[in-house]
Amino acid sequence: ADGSAMRAARERQAQLTKPAGALGDLEDLAVRLAGVFGTEQPHPQGVAVLVAAGDHGVAAGGVSAYPPEVTPAMVANFLADTPAGPGGAAVNAIARTVGARVYVMDAGVNADLPEHPALFRASVRRGTRDLRSEPAMTQEEAGASVLAGAALARRAIEEGADLLIPGEMGIGNTTPAAALTARLLELDPTRVTGRGTGVDDATLLRKVDAVRQALEREGSGRADPLGVLADLGGFEIAAMLGMMFQAAASRRAVILDGFVEGSAALVGVALVPALRDFLFPAGECAEVGHAAQLAHLELKPMFCLGLRLGEGTGGVLAAPLLLSAAATLREMRTFAEAGVPGGA
Amino acid sequence: ADGSAMRAARERQAQLTKPAGALGDLEDLAVRLAGVFGTEQPHPQGVAVLVAAGDHGVAAGGVSAYPPEVTPAMVANFLADTPAGPGGAAVNAIARTVGARVYVMDAGVNADLPEHPALFRASVRRGTRDLRSEPAMTQEEAGASVLAGAALARRAIEEGADLLIPGEMGIGNTTPAAALTARLLELDPTRVTGRGTGVDDATLLRKVDAVRQALEREGSGRADPLGVLADLGGFEIAAMLGMMFQAAASRRAVILDGFVEGSAALVGVALVPALRDFLFPAGECAEVGHAAQLAHLELKPMFCLGLRLGEGTGGVLAAPLLLSAAATLREMRTFAEAGVPGGA
Repeated sequence: ADGSAMRAARERQAQLTKPAGALGDLEDLAVRLAGVFGTEQPHPQGVAVLVAAGDHGVAAGGVSAYPPEVTPAMVANFLADTPAGPGGAAVNAIARTVGARVYVMDAGVNADLPEHPALFRASVRRGTRDLRSEPAMTQEEAGASVLAGAALARRAIEEGADLLIPGEMGIGNTTPAAALTARLLELDPTRVTGRGTGVDDATLLRKVDAVRQALEREGSGRADPLGVLADLGGFEIAAMLGMMFQAAASRRAVILDGFVEGSAALVGVALVPALRDFLFPAGECAEVGHAAQLAHLELKPMFCLGLRLGEGTGGVLAAPLLLSAAATLREMRTFAEAGVPGGA
Repeated sequence: ADGSAMRAARERQAQLTKPAGALGDLEDLAVRLAGVFGTEQPHPQGVAVLVAAGDHGVAAGGVSAYPPEVTPAMVANFLADTPAGPGGAAVNAIARTVGARVYVMDAGVNADLPEHPALFRASVRRGTRDLRSEPAMTQEEAGASVLAGAALARRAIEEGADLLIPGEMGIGNTTPAAALTARLLELDPTRVTGRGTGVDDATLLRKVDAVRQALEREGSGRADPLGVLADLGGFEIAAMLGMMFQAAASRRAVILDGFVEGSAALVGVALVPALRDFLFPAGECAEVGHAAQLAHLELKPMFCLGLRLGEGTGGVLAAPLLLSAAATLREMRTFAEAGVPGGA
């Protein structure tokens, strides 16, 4: 991030017609945006949510409340024609409300997806291998997904996106996300494995056990983050990592949605610590382990609505808050300009 | 609120393409909006923030970090021509970002405000009397402000507002808000008197003392909420109460911003408990005592950004969350419509 733009933004903020600090966390967010966009008056405009879908070998182990068939069915739902416009899922409804564009990506769904002009086809394999017994992906496969995610982010940026929201759909994917988080933060599986879309106690125990089995296989260590990603991750997680890197490289902001996105971010900051400066966590999601991710990133979420849906929904909800934070730096007058007594 | 619309909304919500409960607090918000608008698929559109300004006799007691001259200066700032559009205050910048309309009302500013077509002139008196030594307003004065606030809300509703955000500007007004909260919730002044725009320790002690003096005068009791309002309140607080009543009467939703707005809401629910169903708290503001207000209302805020600016800023930030909650009920497809396995 651009330290001199951040300093200039802070100086400007101190002159704006409000008591010092009265906009709370919005003030830090505004300054961080100044750092991302390299100007004391950042003007992010386009918002894009990039939903990557992938399937997971570990779903065969009964770690989700839903069957794997839901992954392709939801991809079709993201793309469906509806009376309200394209897409009948939560992310579509929320994105229409806040004016965000939705991109959908097949990163590795285990199905023949129908042709659709709005579907970005980048499937590396029809789902990962079962991480309980073998590496989920080869390094080449994971790398291909990272590059594909970066390519989609590049397209979104070319089409006007300033705030990018990696999102995901993949039945079973909170299990690899938990495995990645446990490995990278060196936490016990019980501390990072949660109920995902809402599994019962027996399924939760199977999830914890699946994460433990994956961690106990000989695998890559923390010193090799991409190895860990291939070993324990998923195609949509790798794709989201690529989106984050591309956004940062293009000096755009990333709104970080939930726990699965957080696992991609952990891989990212392990590789390139400065990636952190481009990440803006949306909410603290209901998934256990998300708080540990945010603590590691030393980033504070904007809200706590108890979301646990994925799809990037929380990220889209947070976009107006970030746009507003930037607007205060650009559009508020200073005490001197407004002739208001009491400036610093 | 319309109980049958709420039940229908809940049944519809259970069929939508998401795990049960996965949208967290957004689900309850959507159902409450169904109750307000009387339909299982609520479609709120226009957002209006109504900023009422007033001055306070108690400001002479040194209870604020800013001089009373800031009140009229900020009213001028709300109305100023700027390169970005009308208004150079935080509420203007944020409202432009989320597409909300800003209304500005002189409810009782102690100054000659310049003519401006966008200023709603409804000043009852040039500021309240000093509540430490006498009632801040007569019942007639308070009643006139309530009616003026209702009239402005009616105008905003006629001009398309579905979500109404009462907002305020008035140097010294967290002192009457604390007095109202202490009286109506029967709490000690120290528990509800905070730092407002950021006062130092000595000023905070003066504020607590001012609230205590006001409460120790012979005054109206909880059984007479309008009497309490006149005794301890302010013109902008009375006006916001009128806005809330008019919004509820017109079946529109009220986004409840901060601590001063909360004190108006406490008067409102003391008079008409059903008003609560029309209130949607934005964030938990930094002001001590706000949490006690929300607990009394049994309402959960949408975020916690540590805002303590007023002007309705938090309410405007919350508007996209409410609009999004409603959109999920209208625009998401059901499991059956989408052909997704796993519906209830």
